[in-house]
Amino acid sequence: MPDKKQLHLTAFMRPVSLHTGAWRYPGAYPDANFNLKHLISFIQSLEAAKFDAFFMADHLAVLNMPLEALKRSHTVTSFEPFTLLSALSQVTTHIGLAATASTTYDEPYHIARRFASLDHLSGGRAAWNIVTTGNPESSKNFGRDEHVEHGERYKRAREFYDVVTGLWDSFADDAFPRDPESGVYVDPEKIHVLNHKGDELSVKGPLNIARPVQGWPVIVQAGQSEPGRQLAAETAETVFCGPRDIEAAKALYQDIKGRAEAVGRNPNHLKILPAALVIIGDSVEDAQEKRLKLDSLVHYDSAISSLSIALGTDASKYDPDAPLPKDIPETNASKTSREGVINLAAKEGLTVRQLASRLGGYSGLAFVGTPETVADEFEQWLNEEAADGFTITFPFLPEGLENVTKRLIPELQRRGVFRKDYEGTTLREHLGLPRPKNRFFT
Amino acid sequence: MPDKKQLHLTAFMRPVSLHTGAWRYPGAYPDANFNLKHLISFIQSLEAAKFDAFFMADHLAVLNMPLEALKRSHTVTSFEPFTLLSALSQVTTHIGLAATASTTYDEPYHIARRFASLDHLSGGRAAWNIVTTGNPESSKNFGRDEHVEHGERYKRAREFYDVVTGLWDSFADDAFPRDPESGVYVDPEKIHVLNHKGDELSVKGPLNIARPVQGWPVIVQAGQSEPGRQLAAETAETVFCGPRDIEAAKALYQDIKGRAEAVGRNPNHLKILPAALVIIGDSVEDAQEKRLKLDSLVHYDSAISSLSIALGTDASKYDPDAPLPKDIPETNASKTSREGVINLAAKEGLTVRQLASRLGGYSGLAFVGTPETVADEFEQWLNEEAADGFTITFPFLPEGLENVTKRLIPELQRRGVFRKDYEGTTLREHLGLPRPKNRFFT
Ligand SMILES: Cc1cc2nc3c(=O)[nH]c(=O)nc-3n(C[C@H](O)[C@H](O)[C@H](O)COP(=O)(O)O)c2cc1C
Ligand SMILES: Cc1cc2nc3c(=O)[nH]c(=O)nc-3n(C[C@H](O)[C@H](O)[C@H](O)COP(=O)(O)O)c2cc1C
Repeated sequence: MPDKKQLHLTAFMRPVSLHTGAWRYPGAYPDANFNLKHLISFIQSLEAAKFDAFFMADHLAVLNMPLEALKRSHTVTSFEPFTLLSALSQVTTHIGLAATASTTYDEPYHIARRFASLDHLSGGRAAWNIVTTGNPESSKNFGRDEHVEHGERYKRAREFYDVVTGLWDSFADDAFPRDPESGVYVDPEKIHVLNHKGDELSVKGPLNIARPVQGWPVIVQAGQSEPGRQLAAETAETVFCGPRDIEAAKALYQDIKGRAEAVGRNPNHLKILPAALVIIGDSVEDAQEKRLKLDSLVHYDSAISSLSIALGTDASKYDPDAPLPKDIPETNASKTSREGVINLAAKEGLTVRQLASRLGGYSGLAFVGTPETVADEFEQWLNEEAADGFTITFPFLPEGLENVTKRLIPELQRRGVFRKDYEGTTLREHLGLPRPKNRFFT
Repeated sequence: MPDKKQLHLTAFMRPVSLHTGAWRYPGAYPDANFNLKHLISFIQSLEAAKFDAFFMADHLAVLNMPLEALKRSHTVTSFEPFTLLSALSQVTTHIGLAATASTTYDEPYHIARRFASLDHLSGGRAAWNIVTTGNPESSKNFGRDEHVEHGERYKRAREFYDVVTGLWDSFADDAFPRDPESGVYVDPEKIHVLNHKGDELSVKGPLNIARPVQGWPVIVQAGQSEPGRQLAAETAETVFCGPRDIEAAKALYQDIKGRAEAVGRNPNHLKILPAALVIIGDSVEDAQEKRLKLDSLVHYDSAISSLSIALGTDASKYDPDAPLPKDIPETNASKTSREGVINLAAKEGLTVRQLASRLGGYSGLAFVGTPETVADEFEQWLNEEAADGFTITFPFLPEGLENVTKRLIPELQRRGVFRKDYEGTTLREHLGLPRPKNRFFT
C-alpha cells in the first residue's frame, strides 16, 4: 500500500482535445480525432503512463453551433464509443475504457448488453458514463420535435440505472457449468428474470450475456444540476465535473460526497475527477505562451461570438487589440458569466482578441506550467479535498499528450502520488472500487 | 480475372455452431461461443482461408425455449455483435465483418452510426444484416407486451433502410479539407441534412460521422416471407436463406433475383448464400458417422420434443430404438414438415432416436462428405444457379472449422472456384459489389 493519497487520472479522448484550436497547432495531427492509428498510439502512451482510463464523451447529433464554428470543428466526425473502445480493447491490456451512453435516447437492454460485452471483451475494463444528453438537437434524430424535459430525463435516468444494473445481475457468477458429460451448459436456477415494470420502463430480462467481469462496469456521471448531483450521489463511482477553480471544486466535492453519505454510501467509493486542460512547458512562461499560441488558432469569427454570449452583449464592436472596455453593460444574461469574463481579462491582462480566443478555445479549468508546478497544484487539489484526481483534456496531439505522459506523470510518480505500475487488471481495481455483489444471488 | 464462376463463403459465427450438440463433441471447446481467445483463433483461420466474411446473427432476448433445451443451449450467453466485431477488426486485416441489427427494436441514427464507425475502424469491412427480429420474446425487453406485427415490422424495416442509407450519405466523400492554414475542417456545402419525415420514422440528420469507407456497408437480409423476399430484392446485396435442398434453392434464387431485376437492379449485385452445415470426413461414411455422433449428443428430452413438434404428434410414445412407425396420424400441424420428417427417416434409415436427434440438433441444409464430394456439390449448386456461395455453419469447433479451412477450401481453390488470395481490401471488393454513389453529392 502506498503511504500517500493517490491520484486517479482519466484521459478525455472524445474529442481528443476540448480546445477548438487543437487540430491547427503546429505539429499536431489535424485528423487526430478520427484516425484510428493515431488513437491507438495515444491509448498505448496513456497505458504506458498507467492512466486509469480512456474516456469518450458522446453526442447524438452534430453539435448545434453557428456555421462559422461548425466548419472549424474537429468534432464533426468522431468514432462511436462502443465500436472504438471495443477495437482499442484489443491493442491494450490494462487501461480502463469509459463510454458515454444516453438514458434518454437509448434502451436499457441495449446499453446493459453492450457494456457487459465490452467488459467481457476487455477483461473487466468497461465504464459507463450515464448522461441524459444535453444537446437538444439529439431529439430530432430520434423522432421527436422537442428535447425531453430536464426533470423527466433525470427521472428516466434513475430508473434506467436500476434496470441496467438489474440486467447485469441476470446470471449468478457461477451460472455456467458447461459440462459436456451431463450436457448442462447453464444452471436455470442461476438465471434471474428481472420483470421490471416501472413508471418509465418495462423490461423483462434476463440479459443474453453472462454477468460482467467487474460485476457491473464502473458507473460514471457528469451532471451538474441539482438532479444531476443527486443521481451522481446515488449511483456514480466516478464523477467528471467542471468546477472553475479550487474553491468551487471543494464545495462540489463536499456536496457530492455528503449526498452519497446521506444515502448510505461509502464516500471513498465515489471518486471526483474534475475535467482539466493541462499544458506543460519548459517554464511557466513557455507553457503560457503555448496557451496563447493555441488560443490564437481559434478563428476570430467564432471566438468573438463566444465572447458576446458570455458577456451578454455584442463584443464585435470593441477594438480586438485593445483591453476590454470598462463599461460593459449589465443585461438579462448570466451575471456570473459576465463577471467571470471581466475578472479573467483583468487578471491575465488579455486583449479583447485574446479573451475571445480563450472563450472560443477552452475556458474551463486549466493547469498551465512546468511538470513541477502542475504536480504541486495536483497535490494541493488532492490534499485539500478538491479532487481525487483529474479528467485531463490535452491541448494538442501528440505533443501535448506526450508532455503529460512523459514529463508530468514521471514527476507525479517520483512524488509517490501516482502509480508506477498497475496493481490489478480491472478498472475497479485501478480505482480502488469494490466489485458489486449480485443482488439476486449470493 | 478467374475464368470460372467464383464461390463466396461466409462463416456463420453467432452462435459458432447452429448444431445444439456442438459444444459437447469430443475435443470441442465447450465455451467456444463465448471465449474471445477462441473466437480470435477462429476468425484468423477463416481469414487465412480467404473467407468473404464472418457473420453474427443476433437476438434481443434469451431465445424462448423449454427449460430442458435452455439449460443445454450454448447460445444463452454470446457477445454483442458491434462490440465483438469491432474487437475482431483489430486482429484481422481483410475478412468482412457482418453484424445483425434489428429495425424493430433499435433506432436508425444509432444503427447508421455504429455501422459507419465499424466500417471506418475496419477499413471498409462492415456489413449489416437487416432483421425485423423474429423472436417475440424481444418485445418484452423493449417496453412492449406484444411483438410488433409482421407487416408493420417490414414496413418500418423498408423505411429504416432509406433513413440509414440516407444518413450514411450525410457527408460527401471529400467533405473534410482539414486545412490547418485556413482553419477549415469541414466544408459545410458538403454536409447534407436528411430531414426525413415518413410514416414510421422522423430523423433530421446529419450523421455525426464521415461517410463509410465502402460508401455504405454491405446490406444483408435473411427474411423468408413474402415481404422478407421483397425487402431482400429491393435492398439486399447478399441474402442468407435456408432452403432445404437444391430444388428449393433454385426456386428461391430465381424468385429473389427476378424480383431484384423487376425493381431495376442488377441481379449480379445480389449474392445468394444459403446457410449450410458442412461436415468433412476422410470418407463419406466417416463424415456421416461424425454427424450421427454429433446428433447423439443432443439430449433426448429436447430432441424428442423437436420431433413431436415437427410431426404434429407426441413422439415420446414410440420406441426410441426402432424405426419410425408407419401410421403417423395427420393433424392440423404443418403437412410439409410432417412429410419431410417421414421422408428423411426412410431415406437415411434412422431410428426414432436418431431422427429426434437430427431435428433437435440441426435439421437444415447440410453437406456431409469428403473435401471432394462436398466441393462437387458446391460446384453443382454454383453452376446450376442454386446459390452464389454459402453461409457455412460448423458442426463443432475447432476441428469442424479446421476441416473446412484446411481441407475443403484448398480443394475449392485447386478447382479454381474460390480465391487463393484477397484481391481487394473491402468486403464490397471481395463480393464483387460496386461502391454506392452518394445520392446527394457527385
Ligand atoms: C467532463 C464532462 C463531460 C461530459 N460529457 C458529456 C457527454 O459525453 N455527453 C453529454 O450528452 N453530456 C455530457 N456532459 C454534460 C452532462 O452530462 C450534463 O448534461 C451537463 O453537465 C449539464 O448538467 P445537467 O443536465 O445536470 O444540468 C459532460 C459534462 C462534463 C462536465
Ligand atoms: C441464415 C439465417 C440467419 C438469420 N439470422 C437472424 C438473426 O440474426 N436475427 C433474427 O432476428 N432473425 C434471423 N433470421 C430470421 C430472419 O430474419 C427472419 O425473421 C426469418 O427468416 C423469418 O422470415 P420472415 O420474418 O420474413 O417471415 C435468420 C434467418 C436465416 C435463414
